[in-house]
Amino acid sequence: MENLQRLIAVARGDAPADLVVRGGKVFSVFTREWLDADVAVVDGVVAGVGSYRGESTIDASGSYVVPGFIDAHLHLETPKLMVDEFARLVLPLGTTAVVADPHEIANVLGVDGVHWLLDATSGLQLDVYFMASSCVPASPFESPRRALMPGDLESLMRRRRVLGLAEMMNFPGVIAGDPSELEKLGLEGARHVDGHAPGVLGAELQAYAAAGIRSDHEALTVEEGRERLRAGMWLLVREASMARNLLALLPLVQEYGPWRIAFCTDDRDPDDIVDNGHINGMVREAVAAGIAPEDALLMASHHPAVWHGLSRHGAIAPGYVADLLLLPDLVSFRPSTVLKDGRPIEEVPSVAIPEWVRQSVRIAPVTPSDFAIPWSGDGAMRTIGLVEDQVVTESVERGPVVEGGQVVASAEQDLAKIAVVERHLATGRVGLGFVSGSGLERGALASSVAHDAHNLVVVGMSDREMAFAIERLAELGGGIVVVDGLDIVAELALPVAGLLADAPLAEVVERSRACNEAAHALGWTGATPFLTMSFLALSVIPSLKITDRGLVDVDRFEIVPLAL
Amino acid sequence: MENLQRLIAVARGDAPADLVVRGGKVFSVFTREWLDADVAVVDGVVAGVGSYRGESTIDASGSYVVPGFIDAHLHLETPKLMVDEFARLVLPLGTTAVVADPHEIANVLGVDGVHWLLDATSGLQLDVYFMASSCVPASPFESPRRALMPGDLESLMRRRRVLGLAEMMNFPGVIAGDPSELEKLGLEGARHVDGHAPGVLGAELQAYAAAGIRSDHEALTVEEGRERLRAGMWLLVREASMARNLLALLPLVQEYGPWRIAFCTDDRDPDDIVDNGHINGMVREAVAAGIAPEDALLMASHHPAVWHGLSRHGAIAPGYVADLLLLPDLVSFRPSTVLKDGRPIEEVPSVAIPEWVRQSVRIAPVTPSDFAIPWSGDGAMRTIGLVEDQVVTESVERGPVVEGGQVVASAEQDLAKIAVVERHLATGRVGLGFVSGSGLERGALASSVAHDAHNLVVVGMSDREMAFAIERLAELGGGIVVVDGLDIVAELALPVAGLLADAPLAEVVERSRACNEAAHALGWTGATPFLTMSFLALSVIPSLKITDRGLVDVDRFEIVPLAL
Repeated sequence: MENLQRLIAVARGDAPADLVVRGGKVFSVFTREWLDADVAVVDGVVAGVGSYRGESTIDASGSYVVPGFIDAHLHLETPKLMVDEFARLVLPLGTTAVVADPHEIANVLGVDGVHWLLDATSGLQLDVYFMASSCVPASPFESPRRALMPGDLESLMRRRRVLGLAEMMNFPGVIAGDPSELEKLGLEGARHVDGHAPGVLGAELQAYAAAGIRSDHEALTVEEGRERLRAGMWLLVREASMARNLLALLPLVQEYGPWRIAFCTDDRDPDDIVDNGHINGMVREAVAAGIAPEDALLMASHHPAVWHGLSRHGAIAPGYVADLLLLPDLVSFRPSTVLKDGRPIEEVPSVAIPEWVRQSVRIAPVTPSDFAIPWSGDGAMRTIGLVEDQVVTESVERGPVVEGGQVVASAEQDLAKIAVVERHLATGRVGLGFVSGSGLERGALASSVAHDAHNLVVVGMSDREMAFAIERLAELGGGIVVVDGLDIVAELALPVAGLLADAPLAEVVERSRACNEAAHALGWTGATPFLTMSFLALSVIPSLKITDRGLVDVDRFEIVPLAL
Repeated sequence: MENLQRLIAVARGDAPADLVVRGGKVFSVFTREWLDADVAVVDGVVAGVGSYRGESTIDASGSYVVPGFIDAHLHLETPKLMVDEFARLVLPLGTTAVVADPHEIANVLGVDGVHWLLDATSGLQLDVYFMASSCVPASPFESPRRALMPGDLESLMRRRRVLGLAEMMNFPGVIAGDPSELEKLGLEGARHVDGHAPGVLGAELQAYAAAGIRSDHEALTVEEGRERLRAGMWLLVREASMARNLLALLPLVQEYGPWRIAFCTDDRDPDDIVDNGHINGMVREAVAAGIAPEDALLMASHHPAVWHGLSRHGAIAPGYVADLLLLPDLVSFRPSTVLKDGRPIEEVPSVAIPEWVRQSVRIAPVTPSDFAIPWSGDGAMRTIGLVEDQVVTESVERGPVVEGGQVVASAEQDLAKIAVVERHLATGRVGLGFVSGSGLERGALASSVAHDAHNLVVVGMSDREMAFAIERLAELGGGIVVVDGLDIVAELALPVAGLLADAPLAEVVERSRACNEAAHALGWTGATPFLTMSFLALSVIPSLKITDRGLVDVDRFEIVPLAL
């Protein structure tokens, strides 16, 4: 009550503010106006917008003062940075709050890992909210450490910064009325649920929405976006490194206004953030494409807060958290000053990483023979056909190259071998297959980032190099490696759950780029070899994928043999 | 889960709906479009909007299909109808849900009365939500049966249909940081709070909003409305019988759009509803004044639901409650069909009225001498100056008319005597004063409806007639009476808490009109004598009011003597 009395006294003008942001053009998200006013801040909260005096002052004359940006949906693990380093990266770009689905960590470390991530983010100046990961594993064909059960979700949703249930990726299950999915939707904390329904339209979309799922970030086209809005779903416009939907969806903003539309990054690589920014980059691109700055700002701040019920975020008005950006112009959207809870960005203290979080890669001993594929038939085989820099694949029929009774990789035929090695419980389970269209000519690429179960994925031209790459991953405790013969030509250690580096941003970006360059030197033709590889194990995105249990025909939703 | 599975199956098109509303133009509150589509309803909920088949069908061709209207703020007691009769009145007008502040009942029957009202409204086809009355009594100068304490508010806010804390009428207390007001705002259930801040602007409005109060229905002007919107407060546009703000505030809709603006009726008389409609009347008037029908419909349905967090109300989309109106045109907004929870309006069963609710008027014996006012001074006196058909009054200095050592009423001087008789605990406390400007020439008017404490208010030209009128009110258990000499020339019994009739609408309207006519026959000049009288005891509206404790100078916020 003392704080509230002080807040009210400052608002009234009877007590000085801690800080006054003076003389800027203050954005009202409520009226889409620029107000010539001071912003009074006390105890990290906006007391009033008007004419105020304070203990200290920031001169905002000539600047636009806008609320901090909020990412409506992302996976903290994708930038491969520890959460403290992630905060150091995005806070200066104006992102002051994010809503994270921690399903990568959840697949690797179970519900304990999510509780750890909640703890690890509690002291950051960046506000990190969570949604409880609804689909661990993503499908019955994937092998996480342990499935997240309804009881796990309940334990998460009781925590203060957990807002609801994260993206319901098992959209076929929801649409079919699968009791295990409906059980999750019926949990006490699951009144607020994010969606994930790629390509779903018509009556199936009505069914998905009827289940109580009121957002989606998978709309790719105006038509998909339009149907989602009409069905009462919030349109979370995503601009991820490998799924850029912003420009395609902006016509909906032109047509209907920014209402019930919010921005999110979903999965953004660290170098993408360095090069193109974060949510501020989406605002910049939207405005460059002709959207009114006021509308773009709404979608980047107020609307993510409204969707997620963050009733004290996303506006500059009495009682709102004082997350304020000073923008020199309405073009670059690069803030000159960022105030989080009314304070300038401070040095982000290092977050300690407990040892159990580092010890996540557990494999049975591997030898080259584990990757051998005997072949006795005379028919064709199905291969995973890469679609350059897309997360979807094709199921491609190819003739096998057989040597000594085994089907092998062939640079000439552009066929690389792929394996997924179970790495949580050291079961020794290995799924084997072939990839066509990578361009790989020699060596092997391996990664412990392999959505969503994050078993070890390796693509190579020889069994020996593949085994060597996997062994190196195990030594590192996870990461990405590029092997040429028995040389490690590039690597990035990701010792935190096999997903996150404990190195600073610059090193992560540099090593990441070196790995990509090394992959290209081995012949890989696509721009993002490891990002592409990381989705080859995701058995819920069409068409042919691979897990430690074998090849998965996603369209038929079943395990299929290599031979046709 | 079974219901949800059925809902999803119908949405998918794999099971027939209970009902299909076919071939209408369906309003999407999300895109402000009219969709040519069927609406499938199952178990009272919208399964889907598209092409559907069902067990039964309503032909909506040629009709506009819109969500049911929602009144964002009203007092159920004002129309003087029992809740079942109120439902019979407003459901056919398209109002399918209301959010009520029960502070009239709360003043008379305490928290028990509110719990009773919650129970009494639980079986109605009309959805009645409540806010816990924050200000009982409205001021320290008023005498309700018993004050509502924070514990009472908590007990209310734990109930399912209670959404938060009702209008914080003690705005000076909030702005001053009064601990007893902040205690209420700090209650667990008080995260959602309605405001009431007449005339508050500038830094004081910032202070009021900083306290966490995010709506107001007291804005009278564009400037007041604009400041409220900018301060992050929802603008609840009120069109009450005695406070018609709609036309004055519509320019804000033209300027900013309908965002964060919702309609409410606050206090509407039964005959006003009969003559002008309810929320549908506000839509009609807004559209007649040039507002786009789509915007008006948003303010009448979706926006009240959004403000109050009624996440399954106020839209026609999968998972929303099937409250649907068929409108023949976008001019009259008089629905041809109303579906509540997917069902036509049914006969509303009578609500039983327990005896304790009827026994609310308890007064000490009265005689004419209780109304006598001895006068020995030679100065002027302050009188309550009526402002025709407004709730505000003036404090007017007048010379007393003295007879036999007593100051008396005088038709010649247009001075009527006014008294407020405490009626909850039979204390015998009577506040006395004079009213100027009523036009009353003879007789007496009395009412048990006297905001907010609802003691008995009587205005008369002789002590004998005043005493007689009060005695009659006590016999009736409350109501309004018009006395001429020792004849009761008109009366309306309001035996339910002294506030509500147990008679049907037609009788209430007829008797109400007869009372008004009888008052006019006695000389009263204003159009709404009893409504005007009912606000003369409300000690939080300027300038001079009267309670059982005496005259209240509202501007100075203190009891003042009659003599100047």
